[in-house]
Amino acid sequence: MRTQTPQGVKDFLPDDARWKVQLEQCIRAVFTQWGYGEVLTPSFELFATVNLGDSSDAQTLKFLDRDGQLLALRPDVTTPIARMVATRFRGIKQPLRLSYLTNVFRAGQDEVGREREFFQAGVECIGVSSAMADAEVVALAAELLRQTGVEQFQISLGHVQFFNGLLAECPDPEARQQIRRAFLRQDYVGLQGVLRRSAVPQWVRSILRDLPRSHGGREVVEQLQTLVDSEVAQAALTNMDAILGHLQVRSLDPYISLDFSMLKSLDYYTGMVFEGYAPNLGFSLCTGGRYDNLLGQFGSERPAVGFALGLERLMGVLAAQGQAVAPAPRRVFIWPGHGSHALHLAAERRRAGDAVVLDIENLSRTEAAASARASGMDQVAFVEDDKVDWLDLTKEGGQPC
Amino acid sequence: MRTQTPQGVKDFLPDDARWKVQLEQCIRAVFTQWGYGEVLTPSFELFATVNLGDSSDAQTLKFLDRDGQLLALRPDVTTPIARMVATRFRGIKQPLRLSYLTNVFRAGQDEVGREREFFQAGVECIGVSSAMADAEVVALAAELLRQTGVEQFQISLGHVQFFNGLLAECPDPEARQQIRRAFLRQDYVGLQGVLRRSAVPQWVRSILRDLPRSHGGREVVEQLQTLVDSEVAQAALTNMDAILGHLQVRSLDPYISLDFSMLKSLDYYTGMVFEGYAPNLGFSLCTGGRYDNLLGQFGSERPAVGFALGLERLMGVLAAQGQAVAPAPRRVFIWPGHGSHALHLAAERRRAGDAVVLDIENLSRTEAAASARASGMDQVAFVEDDKVDWLDLTKEGGQPC
Repeated sequence: MRTQTPQGVKDFLPDDARWKVQLEQCIRAVFTQWGYGEVLTPSFELFATVNLGDSSDAQTLKFLDRDGQLLALRPDVTTPIARMVATRFRGIKQPLRLSYLTNVFRAGQDEVGREREFFQAGVECIGVSSAMADAEVVALAAELLRQTGVEQFQISLGHVQFFNGLLAECPDPEARQQIRRAFLRQDYVGLQGVLRRSAVPQWVRSILRDLPRSHGGREVVEQLQTLVDSEVAQAALTNMDAILGHLQVRSLDPYISLDFSMLKSLDYYTGMVFEGYAPNLGFSLCTGGRYDNLLGQFGSERPAVGFALGLERLMGVLAAQGQAVAPAPRRVFIWPGHGSHALHLAAERRRAGDAVVLDIENLSRTEAAASARASGMDQVAFVEDDKVDWLDLTKEGGQPC
Repeated sequence: MRTQTPQGVKDFLPDDARWKVQLEQCIRAVFTQWGYGEVLTPSFELFATVNLGDSSDAQTLKFLDRDGQLLALRPDVTTPIARMVATRFRGIKQPLRLSYLTNVFRAGQDEVGREREFFQAGVECIGVSSAMADAEVVALAAELLRQTGVEQFQISLGHVQFFNGLLAECPDPEARQQIRRAFLRQDYVGLQGVLRRSAVPQWVRSILRDLPRSHGGREVVEQLQTLVDSEVAQAALTNMDAILGHLQVRSLDPYISLDFSMLKSLDYYTGMVFEGYAPNLGFSLCTGGRYDNLLGQFGSERPAVGFALGLERLMGVLAAQGQAVAPAPRRVFIWPGHGSHALHLAAERRRAGDAVVLDIENLSRTEAAASARASGMDQVAFVEDDKVDWLDLTKEGGQPC
């Protein structure tokens, strides 16, 4: 019992931990080059900070501290960063570009591939409501997928205001609720039923019915512009067209697919939303969008756009692609493990980047060779006075240098 | 209220986060070069896993999950690693060298410089009970302090078996308890009182009385060897002498000071213990020792030795030394933020390692310069067609390149 781990959490053993660190360094380098300064918020917040809607409540890991205060392990990083920006960057008028690489927590394992503790890398671009800001964040997500080595990724782009504009044309609040739920669940059979039963304007019904199938590029926007009789939805299309224009200049159009049927379970999105996919993966690798009302909830109204990438999902995709894990340094075993020459040799090889261990068991020469073999060493250095005898274990079918 | 953070936790803003990442990379490189593979355990464990003695109980942040199971945010990393090794590395006979860089949690802020969430870097060397293993771990701690730039650090070395050997000579269990407590609290006035009142052999009384003052090198061991009439304590002295011998070969004796009055509040230490100090710091930078019984509690008897370094404490010492924080990359602002030449320039400068942001606000040229200045940019590139005009803001007294 004592040796078990709780459900939904895991150990990273050395090979996985090294690969995770390597991916994080790759991602961190991209964030830095794009001017997104890394921040780190506490692992837990006041529950009142992260509980902005009921949706997150049941999914939040909560606990009471000794003073009886209700605390919550962060269920995401966007909300804590909004809290941080509202207080620590209150006076800043210039765009704020922030990034993070950290773990987040959920109370249950409701979604495929989601655990109770998992790792995210993400950014928040705060203070600008332009289509260029949206395009920058989508482009940065694409750059991460490219640089980490995801092959044939696709980014789906949607817009919650387009959908909201259509829904506003439905007089029946019950029907609006049912339509939203059908799209969230991608229950398109149920959708047809709701549309048949409800008093929905004909042009809205027709667009909603076709929406799940009308994926594509800029032509989808142009076509919808001719069909839509809603100011809010038209504004969303204009906005989307501008975002697509900026992504086209960045030569990202081959990776982009419009999907106006994309809804988000989080209420805080207010504009463009997107998800990044890899082939044959049943869930998104990264997800994000514009959320212009969140910072206002912390008393500091500012528009914002961002995304988060799931690190374990990324590792899963790369593993499925057969991408090699992080290369290990050459492993050198030095025997005996004492004496100044052994220590000098260790220092020299460490400076050269090798992983060097000294015998600490007082082994015989034969035992040392066997132990080095059993622990997957690449080389053994037998030191006698200032003479070194090298044994190359990689030639025996061990791990390559 | 919603904008506050809970007591005892903190935000890392970009400068501090960058510095923390840089220190972690430096530490990680040393771990790798010494053959200590990084692992990562979950943020929370079953409470039964981490609660091995009452001492940790009140200090552990606990919570119930939805299934009514009592979980605990890890109060240290050594115990979770022991749990992991006992299950995941059960069959391994060779020495295991593992390292970690992660956060740990405490329920209260009882100790100076300790928060409710703080960061540790550490190692565990598992499977070997030799003095060479002890010396390796102490040497690795010294190497970390050296490589991260701590000036004039000192490492105090003690041995819990020496103390246990002396205490075993006291017939009164109450007195043993009081003597131990006096040493733990460094209450040497109280100690004199207990020693006067209790039936303690004269030679034990005399050693215990002098212990807090008898710091030093190998000569302390030699002197104690002539005074001690206890097999356990003599074995501890022999062990310490061997460890010191190995540290001397590594030229570490100038950094080492023996302190047999050093006790540990954690019960799990069974042999050599040590602490690393920087001048004028009231608490230790790192702490560790031998713990040969911990893995047995998880059903896999193996000797072990390790240490943990407090990252925030290290940052505090380096800051007090006036050590510069991590250098920031050159920050380049490109205006306007669209058009293929601006994008090509951005890509080129990013490849060169600069932090590049593009205007996403549709600023005028004058506004762009003002915004770049206000956000601490080093350079502005004004792009017109394929011509670039550079403005160097570092010459205006901004941040140096």
